[in-house]
Amino acid sequence: MYRTMIEPRVSETDGLGHINNTVAPVWLEAGRNKLFKLFNANHSFKDWKMIIVNMNIDYVRAIYFGKNVEVRTWVKKIGTTSLQLYEEIWQNETCCVKGTTTYVHYNREKQLSEPLPEEVRKELKKHCYR
Amino acid sequence: MYRTMIEPRVSETDGLGHINNTVAPVWLEAGRNKLFKLFNANHSFKDWKMIIVNMNIDYVRAIYFGKNVEVRTWVKKIGTTSLQLYEEIWQNETCCVKGTTTYVHYNREKQLSEPLPEEVRKELKKHCYR
Amino acid sequence: MYRTMIEPRVSETDGLGHINNTVAPVWLEAGRNKLFKLFNANHSFKDWKMIIVNMNIDYVRAIYFGKNVEVRTWVKKIGTTSLQLYEEIWQNETCCVKGTTTYVHYNREKQLSEPLPEEVRKELKKHCYR
Amino acid sequence: MYRTMIEPRVSETDGLGHINNTVAPVWLEAGRNKLFKLFNANHSFKDWKMIIVNMNIDYVRAIYFGKNVEVRTWVKKIGTTSLQLYEEIWQNETCCVKGTTTYVHYNREKQLSEPLPEEVRKELKKHCYR
Repeated sequence: MYRTMIEPRVSETDGLGHINNTVAPVWLEAGRNKLFKLFNANHSFKDWKMIIVNMNIDYVRAIYFGKNVEVRTWVKKIGTTSLQLYEEIWQNETCCVKGTTTYVHYNREKQLSEPLPEEVRKELKKHCYR
Repeated sequence: MYRTMIEPRVSETDGLGHINNTVAPVWLEAGRNKLFKLFNANHSFKDWKMIIVNMNIDYVRAIYFGKNVEVRTWVKKIGTTSLQLYEEIWQNETCCVKGTTTYVHYNREKQLSEPLPEEVRKELKKHCYR
Repeated sequence: MYRTMIEPRVSETDGLGHINNTVAPVWLEAGRNKLFKLFNANHSFKDWKMIIVNMNIDYVRAIYFGKNVEVRTWVKKIGTTSLQLYEEIWQNETCCVKGTTTYVHYNREKQLSEPLPEEVRKELKKHCYR
Repeated sequence: MYRTMIEPRVSETDGLGHINNTVAPVWLEAGRNKLFKLFNANHSFKDWKMIIVNMNIDYVRAIYFGKNVEVRTWVKKIGTTSLQLYEEIWQNETCCVKGTTTYVHYNREKQLSEPLPEEVRKELKKHCYR
């Protein structure tokens, strides 16, 4: 599991007084930074391979400004050319958001999906949800 | 169906050169403005009733800067206290994003879900997906 | 003057119940789309030339969700390689935000600022603030 | 000086391949969280007092995805009812953004600016730019 600590921002709240629902995808993506690095050690966009195809988010509880949150990122399923993640956002020892996100490993130049590299696959297995 | 025209912004693109995936939820929420108004004619946050509980988004095609998009918002299912929407984002006559979003009609003061008002229900029926 | 109509989004409000201050730069940039097109007819990022060097914003009045705003964009000063804009955001017939933004016309490949092309200069003159 | 470490997000980049200019105000505001807390220990929006009136930002160098940035926040000038900050964003030991931001200490209920409280003033003096 990857853990990412995030400090909520005033700009991420909305008129209801808590964090706006559209911020959850932003934080979940922020939680994938270490994972993105596996595919692309120097974080270059030129060689970017991970293309998102689905995101399914349950909003369980409101998240508030003023207290840090933790994004938890697990690998749920490693396919041949795809990768499914299970992710949660926690605040105050409560799970506030949970969801699954699916990526395809894609060669943008050739416009073809490509098998996940063996060394990445090995690393991903260390972060599986169980 | 509600239609909302949106002009993509430079700030909504990302290093891959197209609109970042986290912008889709923002545009879909923007497409619900007319619907929010049904519950809350003066757009006051004090009386806000619609609380999001789930969002499921398929990313079908990349969206680019430089050409307007259209958000299309249908009512998929009207429950007793809940509402499910089916939504699409179109660019260049192509459906690029589609998804379903579920809301609960919630009284924040009493902390209880409440039945959708009859007059709102009547209006929602005009926008059903078929 | 360029005019751009923008419909405020729930995600752009903050816990104080109005539009968050960090949204003003986003809307002002959105208001420059037609101007960006002068330099780059096909909106390609590969050939992007306008690099922002300063932004100075006065927040005059709060902006609220529920009513459209208009961004007004004037050319304030045309330099040899630079361009200064004067911009306002209006809601309810009131000027809520005003500011100046300075760009440099920059060749990113050669890493050098370049004179503004004559035909662009001609077009910019039509939008001067007076 | 207040220091805030921020990890850039993919969603904060733009089509030019670096962090979009509209993200700087977001990060600068994030860097003010400890300062906001002085006025409002429980981070409640109901009692929020700090209203932004001006922001002036110099964009000195591009900021990239893949490496943390540090926001540095100094108190520049303590007025009777106003507060001016001087702020910088650093990456790779380089100052990439610098700016000044002015707030008014405002009672939203009474719609009047109010003197900065003495104990806040004392604390602010510890963070002055020199």
